[in-house]
Amino acid sequence: MITKEQVLEALSYVEEPDLKKDLVTLNMIQNIVIEDQKVSFEVVLTTPACPLKDHIEHACRNAIAHFIDKNIAVDVHMTSRVLGKEGNQLLGIKNIILVSSGKGGVGKSTVAANLALSLHAKGAKTGLLDADIYGPSLPIMFGLEGEKPQSVQHEDGTVKIQPIEKFGIKLLSIGFFTDPNQPIPWRGPMATSAIKQLLNDTDWGDLDYLVIDMPPGTGDIHITVAQNYPIAGAVIVTTPQHVALADAIKGMGMFLMDSINIPLLGIVENMAYFTPAELPENKYYIFGKGGGTRLAEEYKIPFLGEIPLLKGISDAGDNGFPIAIDEEDPTTKAFIAIAEKVAQQLSIIQAVR
Amino acid sequence: MITKEQVLEALSYVEEPDLKKDLVTLNMIQNIVIEDQKVSFEVVLTTPACPLKDHIEHACRNAIAHFIDKNIAVDVHMTSRVLGKEGNQLLGIKNIILVSSGKGGVGKSTVAANLALSLHAKGAKTGLLDADIYGPSLPIMFGLEGEKPQSVQHEDGTVKIQPIEKFGIKLLSIGFFTDPNQPIPWRGPMATSAIKQLLNDTDWGDLDYLVIDMPPGTGDIHITVAQNYPIAGAVIVTTPQHVALADAIKGMGMFLMDSINIPLLGIVENMAYFTPAELPENKYYIFGKGGGTRLAEEYKIPFLGEIPLLKGISDAGDNGFPIAIDEEDPTTKAFIAIAEKVAQQLSIIQAVR
Ligand SMILES: Nc1ncnc2c1ncn2[C@@H]1O[C@H](COP(=O)(O)OP(=O)(O)OP(=O)(O)O)[C@@H](O)[C@H]1O
Ligand SMILES: Nc1ncnc2c1ncn2[C@@H]1O[C@H](COP(=O)(O)OP(=O)(O)OP(=O)(O)O)[C@@H](O)[C@H]1O
Ligand SMILES: [Mg+2]
Ligand SMILES: [Mg+2]
Repeated sequence: MITKEQVLEALSYVEEPDLKKDLVTLNMIQNIVIEDQKVSFEVVLTTPACPLKDHIEHACRNAIAHFIDKNIAVDVHMTSRVLGKEGNQLLGIKNIILVSSGKGGVGKSTVAANLALSLHAKGAKTGLLDADIYGPSLPIMFGLEGEKPQSVQHEDGTVKIQPIEKFGIKLLSIGFFTDPNQPIPWRGPMATSAIKQLLNDTDWGDLDYLVIDMPPGTGDIHITVAQNYPIAGAVIVTTPQHVALADAIKGMGMFLMDSINIPLLGIVENMAYFTPAELPENKYYIFGKGGGTRLAEEYKIPFLGEIPLLKGISDAGDNGFPIAIDEEDPTTKAFIAIAEKVAQQLSIIQAVR
Repeated sequence: MITKEQVLEALSYVEEPDLKKDLVTLNMIQNIVIEDQKVSFEVVLTTPACPLKDHIEHACRNAIAHFIDKNIAVDVHMTSRVLGKEGNQLLGIKNIILVSSGKGGVGKSTVAANLALSLHAKGAKTGLLDADIYGPSLPIMFGLEGEKPQSVQHEDGTVKIQPIEKFGIKLLSIGFFTDPNQPIPWRGPMATSAIKQLLNDTDWGDLDYLVIDMPPGTGDIHITVAQNYPIAGAVIVTTPQHVALADAIKGMGMFLMDSINIPLLGIVENMAYFTPAELPENKYYIFGKGGGTRLAEEYKIPFLGEIPLLKGISDAGDNGFPIAIDEEDPTTKAFIAIAEKVAQQLSIIQAVR
């Protein structure tokens, strides 16, 4: 009969490649159950979107076989408990992720929506907040035009906005509270108080990740969000052009300022190239080539992936069904890979702290 | 010997098709000189970018031939004196044109730059102001990165910024006054005072047109510019997607508000389609089809033209030589046509007033 100690000893040879410590030291092994020739245990990852999940499971099986007995049946349950940024407990949101760029129209909303859906697809409790006061895109992207979120009075008397649930994620947009045909000529302070309300006075519940779709620029909304909330990290979206990169650099610079200091999780290059159906071998680099990778190298931050120009992405954004809800679409795979890298970066940052 | 009266009588049969009155009533005929079998006169148009220039010249020649004598030599000088919006005399700028959209990244800066260059190409005194505080694009688009405008002290003690002259137009960008690698986390009031300075404290000199490249959204900059300056009209840029059109509608709504009331000069549809060099017959409507024309119809405002997705436009924006400085480029012709329609709309509005 093997013992729990033997199992822990064996698993202490398995390293978490990102966190560079073994699973036992990291306290990731739980609920060890031994019956006869069978051992089962839980590996509690730092995120359900861990790109190394299969790799770690495999390494655990190997360790038991190698250090204890290769004939023993091993039942590994891969679960997760998302690490949270300190200070977020108040809101019940473990990680607030900003999707930002500096430049307008590069695909922030597209990346934010599909990142949130991909995190959800991997099993994370996910929310999505559209902070683009002047041009909210998410009501259209999620087919929720004209929707009005409910407000619920809690027992303590406070009134809280209920986010709308769609495709498994909790969603809120300033666009739900305004007439879509009316402009919102708000000066900064009004915009600032609107965004605070959407964050503070909302029943977000427990979330592993809240993705915030930021407006273009580095203005009032950025300053307010960055200074008043514990942001876990920022994803920078850019297209390959020089003018877009220049704005991305400004956007990144804002997060790196001493007074703000938000970790950069990496860069997504969007609208990288176009391939006509009739010429599947051709890539047309309409907006230039490789700007995103160069930027990532220069700033020594991860390159999270590139997304080509695809009519399907634009159509999906317009018809209320974001592309990442279709699990078979090849673009979905690209967004899942991005989501995994984002979650991975957050785990590394949180674990090191 | 024919008389001036005969000439005026003949020309009173020539109608200005836009203004729907004859040239004599409109006071557009000047400097009539009669020598023997030759008559010369000046036709003072309301804009050098008048798309009907050739048509009007032709109609004048016909009128002289028909009503006076078909053997007389006619020497027509087509000149112009741009009508100005009332109240602009203070600044010496006849017409301030906003290029706006609501949505980010649709090509406002590209259209603003090429519109200004096209107005100049038609002979108008033109300026271009980049009002995108958070993501100024014009320094890169005009190859003027790192440029620092001079300030000059006038005799009356006031200090005025000198716009930079490039490709024949007077240019100023908030980007000239900031470090391109530094973010500008400015709250609204700082942005507002920056834009006022660029308009008030600058030696713009006499300009027929000042084109302002607006930031995305409908925020502080928009409110400040719209409320504090006599704006002649706004050009709305959109791409064909539903999400872009929704923002364009918001942007247009702002200009139409009673308290703002800025004429909409028309809609430009940008990034309309892509045609690979290998398949010159094909048009790929990556972002959807015809959204701009539908919007123009719905709002009963002019459709100014469509611009396809072209690597040349993106490259031109990145390398400091906007496409419209190349007179032979077919895209330049599209921008010239847009500029003519814009000038035409302004003339119609000013003349009716
Ligand atoms: N890879 C892509 N292929 C095709 N269309 C795309 C792609 N990425 C984004 N789009 C479309 O381009 C438009 C701009 O994208 P999106 O709205 O996500 O940009 P944004 O950065 O959020 O813009 P804004 O600055 O206005 O908030 C949308 O219509 C979107 O559907
Ligand atoms: N028709 C086109 N074909 C190819 N590239 C284009 C076209 N129009 C604009 N671009 C490129 O797309 C990018 C966005 O255009 P531009 O900067 O003019 O948009 P914008 O509306 O001013 O953006 P922002 O909201 O950030 O100010 C630029 O790199 C520009 O060169
Ligand atoms: Mg957006
Ligand atoms: Mg711009």
